[in-house]
Amino acid sequence: MQIAMLGLGRMGANMARRLLQGGHDCVVYDPKPETVAQLEREGATGVASLVELAEKLTPPRVAWIMVPAGEITDATVMELAHHFAAGDVIVDGGNSHFKDDVRRARLLAERGIIYLDAGTSGGVWGLERGYCLMVGGDAAAAKRLEPVFRTLAPGPSGIPPSPGRTPGSTAEQGYLHCGPAGAGHFVKMVHNGIEYGLMQAYAEGFDVLRNADSDALPSDQRYDFDLAEIAELWRRGSVVTSWLLDLAAAALARQPELSGYSGFVQDSGEGRWTVQAAIDEAVPAEVLTAALYARFRSRQEHTFAEKMLSAMREGFGGHVEPTRR
Amino acid sequence: MQIAMLGLGRMGANMARRLLQGGHDCVVYDPKPETVAQLEREGATGVASLVELAEKLTPPRVAWIMVPAGEITDATVMELAHHFAAGDVIVDGGNSHFKDDVRRARLLAERGIIYLDAGTSGGVWGLERGYCLMVGGDAAAAKRLEPVFRTLAPGPSGIPPSPGRTPGSTAEQGYLHCGPAGAGHFVKMVHNGIEYGLMQAYAEGFDVLRNADSDALPSDQRYDFDLAEIAELWRRGSVVTSWLLDLAAAALARQPELSGYSGFVQDSGEGRWTVQAAIDEAVPAEVLTAALYARFRSRQEHTFAEKMLSAMREGFGGHVEPTRR
Amino acid sequence: MQIAMLGLGRMGANMARRLLQGGHDCVVYDPKPETVAQLEREGATGVASLVELAEKLTPPRVAWIMVPAGEITDATVMELAHHFAAGDVIVDGGNSHFKDDVRRARLLAERGIIYLDAGTSGGVWGLERGYCLMVGGDAAAAKRLEPVFRTLAPGPSGIPPSPGRTPGSTAEQGYLHCGPAGAGHFVKMVHNGIEYGLMQAYAEGFDVLRNADSDALPSDQRYDFDLAEIAELWRRGSVVTSWLLDLAAAALARQPELSGYSGFVQDSGEGRWTVQAAIDEAVPAEVLTAALYARFRSRQEHTFAEKMLSAMREGFGGHVEPTRR
Amino acid sequence: MQIAMLGLGRMGANMARRLLQGGHDCVVYDPKPETVAQLEREGATGVASLVELAEKLTPPRVAWIMVPAGEITDATVMELAHHFAAGDVIVDGGNSHFKDDVRRARLLAERGIIYLDAGTSGGVWGLERGYCLMVGGDAAAAKRLEPVFRTLAPGPSGIPPSPGRTPGSTAEQGYLHCGPAGAGHFVKMVHNGIEYGLMQAYAEGFDVLRNADSDALPSDQRYDFDLAEIAELWRRGSVVTSWLLDLAAAALARQPELSGYSGFVQDSGEGRWTVQAAIDEAVPAEVLTAALYARFRSRQEHTFAEKMLSAMREGFGGHVEPTRR
Repeated sequence: MQIAMLGLGRMGANMARRLLQGGHDCVVYDPKPETVAQLEREGATGVASLVELAEKLTPPRVAWIMVPAGEITDATVMELAHHFAAGDVIVDGGNSHFKDDVRRARLLAERGIIYLDAGTSGGVWGLERGYCLMVGGDAAAAKRLEPVFRTLAPGPSGIPPSPGRTPGSTAEQGYLHCGPAGAGHFVKMVHNGIEYGLMQAYAEGFDVLRNADSDALPSDQRYDFDLAEIAELWRRGSVVTSWLLDLAAAALARQPELSGYSGFVQDSGEGRWTVQAAIDEAVPAEVLTAALYARFRSRQEHTFAEKMLSAMREGFGGHVEPTRR
Repeated sequence: MQIAMLGLGRMGANMARRLLQGGHDCVVYDPKPETVAQLEREGATGVASLVELAEKLTPPRVAWIMVPAGEITDATVMELAHHFAAGDVIVDGGNSHFKDDVRRARLLAERGIIYLDAGTSGGVWGLERGYCLMVGGDAAAAKRLEPVFRTLAPGPSGIPPSPGRTPGSTAEQGYLHCGPAGAGHFVKMVHNGIEYGLMQAYAEGFDVLRNADSDALPSDQRYDFDLAEIAELWRRGSVVTSWLLDLAAAALARQPELSGYSGFVQDSGEGRWTVQAAIDEAVPAEVLTAALYARFRSRQEHTFAEKMLSAMREGFGGHVEPTRR
Repeated sequence: MQIAMLGLGRMGANMARRLLQGGHDCVVYDPKPETVAQLEREGATGVASLVELAEKLTPPRVAWIMVPAGEITDATVMELAHHFAAGDVIVDGGNSHFKDDVRRARLLAERGIIYLDAGTSGGVWGLERGYCLMVGGDAAAAKRLEPVFRTLAPGPSGIPPSPGRTPGSTAEQGYLHCGPAGAGHFVKMVHNGIEYGLMQAYAEGFDVLRNADSDALPSDQRYDFDLAEIAELWRRGSVVTSWLLDLAAAALARQPELSGYSGFVQDSGEGRWTVQAAIDEAVPAEVLTAALYARFRSRQEHTFAEKMLSAMREGFGGHVEPTRR
Repeated sequence: MQIAMLGLGRMGANMARRLLQGGHDCVVYDPKPETVAQLEREGATGVASLVELAEKLTPPRVAWIMVPAGEITDATVMELAHHFAAGDVIVDGGNSHFKDDVRRARLLAERGIIYLDAGTSGGVWGLERGYCLMVGGDAAAAKRLEPVFRTLAPGPSGIPPSPGRTPGSTAEQGYLHCGPAGAGHFVKMVHNGIEYGLMQAYAEGFDVLRNADSDALPSDQRYDFDLAEIAELWRRGSVVTSWLLDLAAAALARQPELSGYSGFVQDSGEGRWTVQAAIDEAVPAEVLTAALYARFRSRQEHTFAEKMLSAMREGFGGHVEPTRR
């Protein structure tokens, strides 16, 4: 079917490619003309403005927005809606907050435009592996877009449905209509929250392995482990096999000491939002939160909190901390 | 090769079966005669005592102990060693603490007996999937036992080696000599510590999803998610794919509300040991610890700590807590 | 000076009393006539409506709102502002979120009305001990209200200023202008966040003491501690002396087992807000968050997360959890 | 009464002074002759060896050991016991692990020597404020030493007994026999564990205050707080008043930015032991543990765990972390 892709960054461009390869008719737009030109060479119809984009699409139009979250998404949605009409569909495939989806869906519904939110997992591997899609918003519109979802999604991926399932759900193809407006990004948000927790669990475990040869330990209880070998081992038959472990094993194979990484770790928003959602729901989410805080901490040389500790220690015990490790 | 299996519980019996199927000559022992008889019917040589077991084995002997951790393992190792001689090998495949391995290896070495520790992951799936083996102790003895490890291990399992690896390591077959005495159980311990963290990350994430329809939330920001569908979805193309997610999806497919589970969760020891190792190494292991504490908490109706909180709240604020949710 | 008190709940009524005892001229209002009547008997001027309240006050008026946080505060502020004029001051002494203060201050400033936020600590002890006041908003207006703050505040309380301070700040009297709109409630919010952390630290410590006689411990390493005695002991000369410890000791003196408390613990909002502020600032706040989550957990029989854990454990290990402790 | 003090470091010397000032007959020993000489000038009887110490004491002897924890304490106790006889008392006032107390008490009991463990809080303030004493071991011996405890302890300190208490317990004097061998150090251990939690709660709260002017926040929701003023304020009438807050306020008064502290924070052992005890008891101790981990983290530039996170992020998302903040 015909669909426009707005935003041709790494994610957007590859999604357009996957759609083109799936036989869809893609209209593409990006502020950078060279990325539009590149996609044109690969079979897409390039446009130079949102007006032109709206003109090129046959109503009822379908456009997929793939721009960085935040104010840019909001502005893009609103400007595009300006050129769209009742019955048209705008999909936000970025990482919007689900409350923004609720607000936008309501706003656009006033003019009959349908807003869908599509949480998209896949990263740099999506072109090849497919994109796991978590969709929220009007169910009928989501149904209408199934050809697009099916192409973008990974498909069964050789993974048999879970035993006991009533087969046939689109979840088995790697896409799912999760609920009303915001539901897609909510599920994607929690997905990323879990991702933080999983990553931190592996990270801590490998840290315990790596420090097993610490001088502070009795000499006959020290181990100098080969982390790359252990990661490779666990990929087969262990309880902790996962795609993240595969990635960890690959990284350790390349760099046994990971010395190319500074240890500074960013967080992208969804981890914070998951914790906020947990708090709103009064759900204790210790692990997801600890994973987030580890990243916060990684970006500081020292916290003010730590200096407070030292100040109090000096106050009651006369302890003077060393200034260096 | 010839090997004795001591302890024919679920794990030990299935490991003996896998060895028999792999063409090994298995001598089996268990205090329960009927389990010995069953394995005899499947091709093993049953024995009725450790003396008989030692007699049936051709020196240098190899015996694999698969009994519950703790005092029973200690007693079994020591009694078996009593019947063994220099050059014989005793493998502890259970969940011993690595410090116990160090002690036992040293003790047995005085008599020339070799003690190996083999952390074994695989659970109820091991017979079919193979057992991921993490081996510690004398390297030459571990080399000698490779035929056994190779049979028990899962093999490549269709998983290509990580890109960038120098191929050929046994890790790619699902078994690895990890280091000197205790190294195998240390790696298994951390494996289980990570497992706790991974499980808790999924558990918290699904808890946030499940409570997304809480009355405390604004009515247009509530979602009634189908957790089984979401779990199934994430199995394809998402960042959080893993074997544990497969298991979670299967459980949710059978019981969408998991109403057959009480919420009481046991911990088996390795999670505690991992935290203790982290503390000994001064490694911050927030997520692994939080996962452990969530299990501790799950086994109490209320902690005394909670009553202390209420008592203080009443003290400064006159707050009287409701006695029921 | 003349001041109106709106909201004569436990906090508001006692604050009016303290103001009356301090020689101030108090106009009081509450939806419940009987509480107004009671304060009239103690020397206040009662009014039956906000209109009457505005009439009874000599411009520039000063009114202190002491109603539960949330929508009621908003409605009360807005309705009162309707009867007030430029130069009048409205103080919100409740537990509003600082972002609401920022919004209200801006809104009222359009009409020349000054909005101050006054975080108020003191609870049931405030009438006797005084109220620690954290004030935000226009500095000149805060200056104008100092006679009121000085009366409400605890005063020096026999506590000498910290060594090294330049003496003379109002902090030494127990009240402080902390910054622009919202600053007062921000500081109060963090105060309560810290309070949660402190309480949880004591609670966990006493929990460790109380479970020191667990059957799971070696018999010569079990202790049956008298918690009331230990709490009393620590009040003198230890590092952990505090008012909260005094309250804990008093509670344990009355009820050594705290058997009158269910273990269900509420949270009042500021703890959640503190964590949200920490996340907004990317400050790792592990302890404050863990304290909050302990309360969330205390209000559930079992979390869904726990059932997820059991389901996965059964999946990989065939572990069947006991249904009862 | 007559008592020997072994170990004249900051703690030991000041305790000897307090005993001398209380009219006790003090025999003092330290490997450094100059510290012995100093105490002699203040009225103590100095000795140059443990043999001489044993000779100078009239049986039944009483000696208080105040040396750093660990192997030195063990060696000192054992050597002293060598010169002591049945009925003599050895008190370990240092920070021994309670399990070591249990072992030592049993060992010495074989020869009729009584071993008491006395957890001692007070630090650099003890000489003036008195030492809060938590005593474990033989009750009759502890009774015999009450004159010593009473002198060392802070006494009532102007703190009235908790309402509702049956008055008269020694806890009201700041010392307490807590139970059998190890009980004193167990209580001191938990005391320090709580101390860690309390400190971290304040530290995090002040960190949230200090980062309230972060550029990442909306400009009308930023605050540039005066932390010294806020700490001073909270000392009066707030819920978070405590001795630790007094110390924090004093530190902030001296150094508003705490710029003299590196942020590197040591941990002294008891915090780790408290967590280990919690784990042994299956008590969830989230806050006490998080406080410990914050110290571990403070002593590293970056954890290996953080590099693992970055490696995985690059793996699935192509995220390249900045190498600097």
